[in-house]
Formats: sequence, structure tokens, C-alpha cells
Amino acid sequence: MGIVRQSIERAASEVIDGLAACGVATVHEAQGRKGLLASYMRPIYAGARIAGSAVTISAPPGDNWMVHVAIEQLQPGDVLLLAPTSPCEDGYFGDLLATSAQARECRGLIIDAGVRDVRDLTEMQFPVWSKAVFAQGTVKNTLGSVNVPVVCAGAHVEPGDVIVADDDGVCVVKREEAAEVLEKARARDANEGEKRERLASGELGLDMYKMRERLAAEGLKYV
Amino acid sequence: MGIVRQSIERAASEVIDGLAACGVATVHEAQGRKGLLASYMRPIYAGARIAGSAVTISAPPGDNWMVHVAIEQLQPGDVLLLAPTSPCEDGYFGDLLATSAQARECRGLIIDAGVRDVRDLTEMQFPVWSKAVFAQGTVKNTLGSVNVPVVCAGAHVEPGDVIVADDDGVCVVKREEAAEVLEKARARDANEGEKRERLASGELGLDMYKMRERLAAEGLKYV
Amino acid sequence: MGIVRQSIERAASEVIDGLAACGVATVHEAQGRKGLLASYMRPIYAGARIAGSAVTISAPPGDNWMVHVAIEQLQPGDVLLLAPTSPCEDGYFGDLLATSAQARECRGLIIDAGVRDVRDLTEMQFPVWSKAVFAQGTVKNTLGSVNVPVVCAGAHVEPGDVIVADDDGVCVVKREEAAEVLEKARARDANEGEKRERLASGELGLDMYKMRERLAAEGLKYV
Amino acid sequence: MGIVRQSIERAASEVIDGLAACGVATVHEAQGRKGLLASYMRPIYAGARIAGSAVTISAPPGDNWMVHVAIEQLQPGDVLLLAPTSPCEDGYFGDLLATSAQARECRGLIIDAGVRDVRDLTEMQFPVWSKAVFAQGTVKNTLGSVNVPVVCAGAHVEPGDVIVADDDGVCVVKREEAAEVLEKARARDANEGEKRERLASGELGLDMYKMRERLAAEGLKYV
Amino acid sequence: MGIVRQSIERAASEVIDGLAACGVATVHEAQGRKGLLASYMRPIYAGARIAGSAVTISAPPGDNWMVHVAIEQLQPGDVLLLAPTSPCEDGYFGDLLATSAQARECRGLIIDAGVRDVRDLTEMQFPVWSKAVFAQGTVKNTLGSVNVPVVCAGAHVEPGDVIVADDDGVCVVKREEAAEVLEKARARDANEGEKRERLASGELGLDMYKMRERLAAEGLKYV
Amino acid sequence: MGIVRQSIERAASEVIDGLAACGVATVHEAQGRKGLLASYMRPIYAGARIAGSAVTISAPPGDNWMVHVAIEQLQPGDVLLLAPTSPCEDGYFGDLLATSAQARECRGLIIDAGVRDVRDLTEMQFPVWSKAVFAQGTVKNTLGSVNVPVVCAGAHVEPGDVIVADDDGVCVVKREEAAEVLEKARARDANEGEKRERLASGELGLDMYKMRERLAAEGLKYV
Repeated sequence: MGIVRQSIERAASEVIDGLAACGVATVHEAQGRKGLLASYMRPIYAGARIAGSAVTISAPPGDNWMVHVAIEQLQPGDVLLLAPTSPCEDGYFGDLLATSAQARECRGLIIDAGVRDVRDLTEMQFPVWSKAVFAQGTVKNTLGSVNVPVVCAGAHVEPGDVIVADDDGVCVVKREEAAEVLEKARARDANEGEKRERLASGELGLDMYKMRERLAAEGLKYV
Repeated sequence: MGIVRQSIERAASEVIDGLAACGVATVHEAQGRKGLLASYMRPIYAGARIAGSAVTISAPPGDNWMVHVAIEQLQPGDVLLLAPTSPCEDGYFGDLLATSAQARECRGLIIDAGVRDVRDLTEMQFPVWSKAVFAQGTVKNTLGSVNVPVVCAGAHVEPGDVIVADDDGVCVVKREEAAEVLEKARARDANEGEKRERLASGELGLDMYKMRERLAAEGLKYV
Repeated sequence: MGIVRQSIERAASEVIDGLAACGVATVHEAQGRKGLLASYMRPIYAGARIAGSAVTISAPPGDNWMVHVAIEQLQPGDVLLLAPTSPCEDGYFGDLLATSAQARECRGLIIDAGVRDVRDLTEMQFPVWSKAVFAQGTVKNTLGSVNVPVVCAGAHVEPGDVIVADDDGVCVVKREEAAEVLEKARARDANEGEKRERLASGELGLDMYKMRERLAAEGLKYV
Repeated sequence: MGIVRQSIERAASEVIDGLAACGVATVHEAQGRKGLLASYMRPIYAGARIAGSAVTISAPPGDNWMVHVAIEQLQPGDVLLLAPTSPCEDGYFGDLLATSAQARECRGLIIDAGVRDVRDLTEMQFPVWSKAVFAQGTVKNTLGSVNVPVVCAGAHVEPGDVIVADDDGVCVVKREEAAEVLEKARARDANEGEKRERLASGELGLDMYKMRERLAAEGLKYV
Repeated sequence: MGIVRQSIERAASEVIDGLAACGVATVHEAQGRKGLLASYMRPIYAGARIAGSAVTISAPPGDNWMVHVAIEQLQPGDVLLLAPTSPCEDGYFGDLLATSAQARECRGLIIDAGVRDVRDLTEMQFPVWSKAVFAQGTVKNTLGSVNVPVVCAGAHVEPGDVIVADDDGVCVVKREEAAEVLEKARARDANEGEKRERLASGELGLDMYKMRERLAAEGLKYV
Repeated sequence: MGIVRQSIERAASEVIDGLAACGVATVHEAQGRKGLLASYMRPIYAGARIAGSAVTISAPPGDNWMVHVAIEQLQPGDVLLLAPTSPCEDGYFGDLLATSAQARECRGLIIDAGVRDVRDLTEMQFPVWSKAVFAQGTVKNTLGSVNVPVVCAGAHVEPGDVIVADDDGVCVVKREEAAEVLEKARARDANEGEKRERLASGELGLDMYKMRERLAAEGLKYV
């Protein structure tokens, strides 16, 4: 506790933006179904789809002092990601902090705790994925750390990892794997376009994926 | 496990459509307050109101193989209903499966588990009521069954039962009771129109329902 | 049980309206971070922001008889607040009761249980903050009380206390403290405007709040 | 609602006792992994292992009137099973009801709600599997039904089905399948004895179950 | 925040001890089914049954500074009761604090949060009812208050109120009502002894409570 | 997925045993309050206190194939630790697997899912800390991995890290920090002995920790 790492590596911005365009479900599949945050992490409004480099915050329960420290570490295109050191739903973040983060071109907040002023945040179009919406305030009395590895909503996140978030939830991509994951995600996307057309025209997945034989071999019985 | 019933009976389509028009709360009352799925079953977007015959799926946790099998069993106006064999939030269903189901004129999905690609599903206007939104993918390795009786979110559902779903949640109506329930639901609706007017004009429920005497008999004291 | 207090004191209407304009997060801070209801109390639609005097209802699980009794006690600008005597998610309240409450100029409902007919309530613009949306109906067989002190979603509420509710949740302000809380809330609002501008222009909270010295004294290390 | 079925069929008592001896995990496997109640159903004390014919109760939330009605329907060796019509944790059952049930040689209670007086019940060795321990009392104002089909903690139960319960939880066996399930459960038990010895002597499951080839075929890599 | 009330009134010790002997379920009934804490408040070991005057603690999340302050306010026979100002499971209390509390003849702890060192506490026979067992430690940086009114696990508690706790959970009795509640609880106990004997001898509750006529009037049908 | 790391480093056995003797709460404090698994991880019986090197398992939901693979990797004194790839409560582990693990001198199981046959496991004195007790069985159809990094109940665990578990829960100590953490934990233990005596004799924490001045400085008011 009490550490701020000031220099973190980030993935290339075109890789990050590419991942945002693919979206969480595709990226998650493309990297072998790992890195997903828990399903309780929900967006405060529908329709946002972002990606950015994680500036991580490890914060004590009910204490948002480190958020102020973290904002100074933001570079344009980053995403704030906060994990409390024990389970907490307090509203660590509201419209003033969002104003400050947006001034530094932060793309959004991922927080395994609560957020407040959600009407203002929606108007500002500052997207947040959180465990709770809760007006309960916090204090500024105890140190945490910035840009250290954390576990956030069940996922291990290193500072500089790429965070992808949309209406389906939040996924973390390891920084060093980001380019390769993007390539695979784009291949999936291309592939899915063709599949979608065939399915829309009435072809069955059973046939398109050639499942009938294996189903029979496993013993599926039609009665 | 490993059974697909190919022929199920369905209620008459005008009965099904009539139930959709009445909505979940009215239908639930009309059938004696039974058949409601758990309150955690929430729509992925507001405003949808559907009814259809249930094509049921019993699927292992984290395995959506049977969804492909079930889609072949869909007839126009049906609703897919999936119950995992043990509690699971994985995203069994996304935009490709929805495309395929929609091609067969499926009206929606009820799933006691997770769904993903919700932005696409919203654009497609393919309504889903689910326990979770979760991008976590599934495998296709283990058989389940299609069109067998299941317990879904606390309600017992037989294939061909009528599923009614709207912003209030999801209700199942036994196929053989559907026509009678519709009749009662319509009677309630008619009756409610008049009540609504009287209440809107300021008449109190205490008077309209003649409650004062019974309240006094039970001992209610005004102080 | 079985008591209806017919005469309760209320805060001045201009104080109540002033608190509504400040919103939950500001009011909660202004009164020293107390009085917040649990974070599971969520609005049925986004954007409502209300305040009103609480007409409280203590009701048995699954029995909404007392809601009818309470509606008679409503004065224009009041808010209904229902706490079940043991945890319950049943739908105590729907469009008919809302019609009746709205006819008496009730501003909304706070209910530590379920609500139904949410599509109708949204159309009527009758806002509800609830623990659940659930079509499960209730009976009218057992007495409760109206305008007695209750604990609702973790907060102690006296009849006549001011309820403030918006997208951030619900907060209760003691009637006798309402004027003073409003004053403090307005002071915060004024103060926040200036802060917001400075943060928007890029000034850091670390500097604006003069945190650097205290952080160093606590041992924060930049690496 | 408001129905008491007085005559139900029961499985043979030696079948029931045989199932009790096998225990929940074995019985559940033997019948193809179905019929398990939710994992939140926990025993009030460790070590009990029972089986019996279900006398089912469908009861309104917070109302235990039907428990009294159900007790009259008990025959020696039966098990009471209560499902509330909507989720509820109230303490429907305590030491007086247990005394009465025990006088009729009831073997225990399965309740998807709360129980109280657990110290007394433990002393009496009257086992209960419940969702909660909660002293909250109930009323006797609203009818339910006895010996009707119910969904209890996620499992569909018909009156007369066999309930098996131990420290692992609760499982329901359809009455008409009970004899066959017992046979399979006993076969598993016999088979497990030999396996246990081989495993205890150090033989690996990988070898005993001949898994290595299939694991390699699926692509497992040792590094 | 930041207040310590040093002088609180307490109920008579013979009343408190009498309530302990009656137990939670009986006391709760005797006072009209109110004052129960939430069912998630569970004892760390079975068999303890206590009552005592509440020394209340309102503490910030993850900060146990006020527990030290509260211990000085304990008088022999008191019970510590801690409510965090927002939901928290941290382990505020362990064997050192228990040693100190026990030195002041404190009878136990009620905490709507976590406790740790439960093996030691069990050996010391210092009973605790808590929301969680969690080794997560706390800091001592932020003030709370001692002997102020709190809401603990859903119940409103004033300092000096009588806390009764046993295997069924925890109940609060208002100090000024304690003597009257004790009287009613003892009457219930006496009454229950006779009922227990009649039920044990096989008499049915249906007859003992004369329920048959009212059931028939409500429409119960035996089939 | 589909990887088995066969060679992992382990901490020295005397360090591991030393950590077991200190217990979870002390070890967790000694390493700066990190590494704790979620509070829902509870022991199946009271009184066990173990430490061991983690052999980690990443397993699909409802599939325990990899447990068999992992058992071959066990060395005497190891602890099995299983994290499902998505939330799951199924009973991955029962008495046969425990027999096999015990034959290899495995000290216990940490599983962020379910366990069954808990009566047998208790008799065998094979301790398990789990999210659930659930008889629901699993299949053996899909690969996972053994001895890869996992997030288990909110904590990041590398294979070979030291797991400490007792009645307070479960804590992970990084292998490379284990010796240093042990030293600090022992220092705390020594220190606590003296504190315990002083507190037992009636000295207050307020005085022993010299808190009064800082409390006054923060503004604590005695009234």
C-alpha cells in the first residue's frame, strides 16, 4: 500500500481502438474465454462501447483518496479501474471526479464498488461500469496504491492492460497479447458476418456447424 | 438427458396473442397467482410484451449445444425457454443464435442463465428475459434435452405451455388452461378499466372495495 | 400493528422542493452522510427526481391491505413509503393503486419490496423506487400500520420525514432537520459549481484540495 | 388454493429406507443427476440422514396456517415439505409444530423458507433443512393447499415423492421411479467400495478410469 | 459522527436475565413480532443464549477505531452492537478485542459486519452474531460514534435497549418496554408448556386451536 | 486451456508449517492485509487449520475432469485449489477424490464451487473450504488446466503459492514472500501474547495503544 507507479506501458492506440470496435463478447472469445469481469458489473447507461489502458487503483473500503492520485496518472485514452481491498459498494466517484477525468481524456471508469451522480455522468457521457449505484460518500484518510496489479470483480488486471467494455460487461486483455487478440477478434468478426447471413436465410446451425453426426454419436434421441 | 421431443401440442394462436395483450400481471392474477418465474428474470430492454408456446431446453452448465438442437424444433410464434441443470450465468445465447431463431419466427428467449450481444439483440428487437447479461461463452460437449419438463427460475414448465413476458417479468400458463385463463384475464381487464376511472376521479379504494367495515372488525384504530 | 396515525407534521413545501432540486447525493453529503436507503432500491425508470413527506406503511409480507388505508392519509406532495415486516419481494403496488395515489397528488412510492405494472407506471410518470419488479400479487387479510416509525431498506424513517429520491437512490431527511440540511446542500451546490469549472479546465484535485502534503506525510511513494 | 388431498400414494417403506441409507449424493447420481433442491437448503444440525414420503404444503408468504392442516395428513415415516407461493424467509415452524409432527412419526421438515426454535429442534432430534433460520413469526389468515404439486427450492415435487436429505442437501425421487433408483444407487455403492480401496492404495483415477488416452486426444499438454 | 454518549440508561438486570432465559423466538412473539435483526446474523458457535444492554457503535466501513472507544463504556452485562455506516464485511473484531471486552464482563457482540479469530472466540466462549466471518482487517483512521441510535441488520437500536440473542438470531427489546415484554414472554412460556404436552400426546393443532370451523368458512376443501 | 505444468516450485516445508500454526488472521495482517479469499469460502467442519503449496486447477463449469489430472501432480503436503472458469456451485469433489488425494498426502481442498459427501469428508478429516455444499454432479468432457495462475474467490493464486486456511477463511501467501511473512507473523504472535495479558487484566486499548490524544485531535466528543 502507498505506492504510485508513474510509468506504465500501454498497448498501441490503434490496437486499443480496434478492440473497442470488436466489443466484449468477440474479444473474450478471441482470447480463449478468459479475462471477463463478474456479471454484476453493469453499465450506468446503455450503448457505450469503449477500450483503454487500465490505470489501476487499489483503495481501502469507503476511501476514495487514491482516485485523486490516479487521475494525475491518466493519459488520453486511458480507463480508470478501481478495486477495493475488501468488498464495498460505496460511491467512490461522482460528477466532480468525472469532470476531472474527462479533462484528461479518460474514456471511462470500471469500479468494483459504487458510483453516484449517475444522471450527471449520463449527461456528460462519461461511461461507468460498476457493482452498484450508491450515493454513500467516502472519506480521504487512508492510503491505497495506483498502478499496481489488482483483482477487480474476479479478474486479475495489471496496469496498462487493455480494458474493453460495452453493454455485455467488461473484459481485460493482457497488454502484451492485445495485438494478437485483436487479429483473432477481427477474424471472428469477418467469419461471423457470413454465418449470420446463412442463419438469417434459414440454414440451421445443426447443418452449418455439421453437428448432427456428433450428436447422434453422443446418443441424442429424437422421439 | 439426450432426448428431443419433436411433436408438442400448442395452444391456439389467438389465445396466445390474447394473453400477450393482457400482460403478465393480469394473466398471473387471472390464473390464481401461480406460474410466475423468479423476480431476477429481467428483460434486456424495456417495452417488449410477448407470448408464445414454450420450446424447452434442459442444458448442462456452460454448454449451449442443445440450443442449436432446439432451434430446429421452433415453429412460428414459439418462445425458447432454457433451464440449466445447475445454477449458471454463462452467456448461452448471442446474436448468431438470435438470428437463427428469428429466421424461424421465434418471439423471444427466456433463460435462467446469461445472454450476450445484448446491443445487437436490442437492435434486432429480439427480446430476452434472463438471469444475467454475461459475455462468458459456452462449449458444445455434453447432451441435454429439448421439449422435456423443466423447472425454470422456480416455475415448472411443460413444452407447449404458454409463456407470457413483459416488463413485469415472466409467467407460464398451462397449455390446457390457456383459453380459460385468457377469458378470466379479459374479464379482469374490462373490470379494471372502470375501477381505474373511479380511482382517477378521487374515489378511495377503501370505499370502492368496501373495506372500512372489515378493517374495523379486524381492529384497525385511527388515532 | 393496526394503528393509523392521521395527523403528522410535514416540513415546509419550499424546503421539500429545494431538497428535490439538490438531489440525493448532495443532500446525503449535506446531512453528514446518513439516511441513505440500501443500494438495492432502484428506480423503475431513469430521470425522476422527487422529494416529499413520508406517509409510512408497515405491512405484513404479501399483504397490501394497508396501502389502501395509507392512500387516504396522503396530502398533495407526499410520498408513500412501505416497509414489510419481514423481507418480501411481492408486488404490493400496481397501476390501480398508482392511479389512486396520483389522484391525491402523491409524488411517488418507495417500497422495500416489489412493484408491478411498471410499463403503465412509466407511462403515467409515477416514479417508484423498489427492491424488485415482481408480478406476484398480494392478499388483503392482515392488518399493518400507517404513519408509524419503520426501518425501510436499512434506514429509520418517521412519518413526515422528507424523502429525496433520484437515479442515485433514496435518502431520508429528518423533518426537523430539513431546513438546515437544505441550507447546507445549497451551499455545497454553489461550491461545487466553482470546483467543477476548475477541474474541467484541467486543475487537479490533488492541487485544488491541497492533498499533496498530507499524502506525503502519510507515506505515499511515487516510483 | 384451498385444497387438501387426503389420499396420496407412497413408495414402499423398505425402498424409502434403502434410499436414506444411500444418501443424497449417491441417489442423485443414480437417477441421472436430477431432483436436487438448491444448495441454499441447509440442515439445522449436522449428521441427520433421512428419507420419507413428501406431504407437500403450498403456503402464502408469512402464513403457516396450512402447516397445521398438513400435520393431520402425516403418516408414520412421512416428511413435511413446504414451498411458499413467493420467496419468504419467515419462521413458519418451531418446537410446538415439531412436537406435533413428531407425535405422528414425521421424520423431518424441508422448507424453502425459515425455521425457528432450532436449539429445541436439535435437542428433539427433529431434523430440518431450510433456507433460513429466522425467528420472524407468521399469521394464520390465508388458505394454501396440502398435497398438491409444488416447486420447492427449484425442484418439482409431487405429494408422495420420496425425499432424501442429509448433510449434502435434499433430493427428490419420483415415487414411481423410487424402486429402480434404489437399485441403481445400491449398485453404485457396491461399485464405489472397490474404487475407494484402489484409490486409497494409491492408484490414480487417471489410470483406474482409463482417462489418459481421451485426455491426449482432446489435446491436453503436459509441460 | 464523533460523539460518545457516556451515560445511558439500562433495563433492570433481572429483566434482562429473564429475557435471555425466554429466548429470541418467544421474546419476539411476546412483543408483537417486531425488533428482529435480519436472518443473515448468525452465531459463530451453536448454543449461546444471552441478553444484555446495547452499547452501540456506528463505525465507518473498514475502520474499527470506535470499538476501542466503546469498550471503555461497557458495564458488566452489556452487549456490544456495531452497525457500519455502509455495508461492510470486514473483520472489525478478533480475540484481542474480545479479551478486553470480556475483562469488562461484556456478554457478547452483535455486528452487522465481519468477525475473525473465531476459533479463539469459541474457546473463550465469547459469543458473536455476525453477517460474516472474514479475516480482512480494519484501520483506525476515521471517527464514528458510540451510544447513538443505529440501524443494525434492519432493526432500529437505541443505546440501552435490551439485546436478546440465541441460535435463532437476534432481537432488540426497547428498554422502556423490557419489563412488560418479559411478563408477556413468561406467560407465553407457561402457556406453551401445556400446549407442548397436548401436542406430544397426539392432539392436533387443528383441534387444540379450534381451527376447523374458520378453515371451512374460508373455503378449504378436503378431496 | 489444456495445459498441465508438471514442475512447480514450493516454499520450504518448515515455512509452510509455520504459517499454518500462525493462522489466517495473523498471516493476513503480517503480509499487509492482502491475499484473502472471499468471505463466502467456508470450511465444511470447524477446527481444521492447514497450510500447503497450491496445486491449482482451472476447470470449466460443471466439469471435474481436471481434478483427476491434478491429483497426479500432488506432492505430500500440497493443497488442491480449484477455480471454475465461470461462477458455478456444482459438487466437483466427493469422497472418492478425497480418498485419492489423501493417499497422496494432500492436506485439503480450496474450491470456489461446491463439494459433496461432506459427512464422509468430515469422518476422513479431509478439510475443504468451499463456496457451497451441493450434491450436483459434474461431467468429464472438457479440458481445463492444472498449475496455471487463477483467480479463486477474488484472490490471484500462482501454483506453488502457500495456502493458509482455518475457521476464519483462506489466505494466499506468495511463495517468494512466504519466509518473510512467516517471520512477521511470528513477531505479531509474540507481540499479541503480551497485549492479550494486559487487556485481560483490564487495561484499555485506548491507553495501551495511546489513542486518546489522536481521538481528541480528530474531534471526538464525550457527552
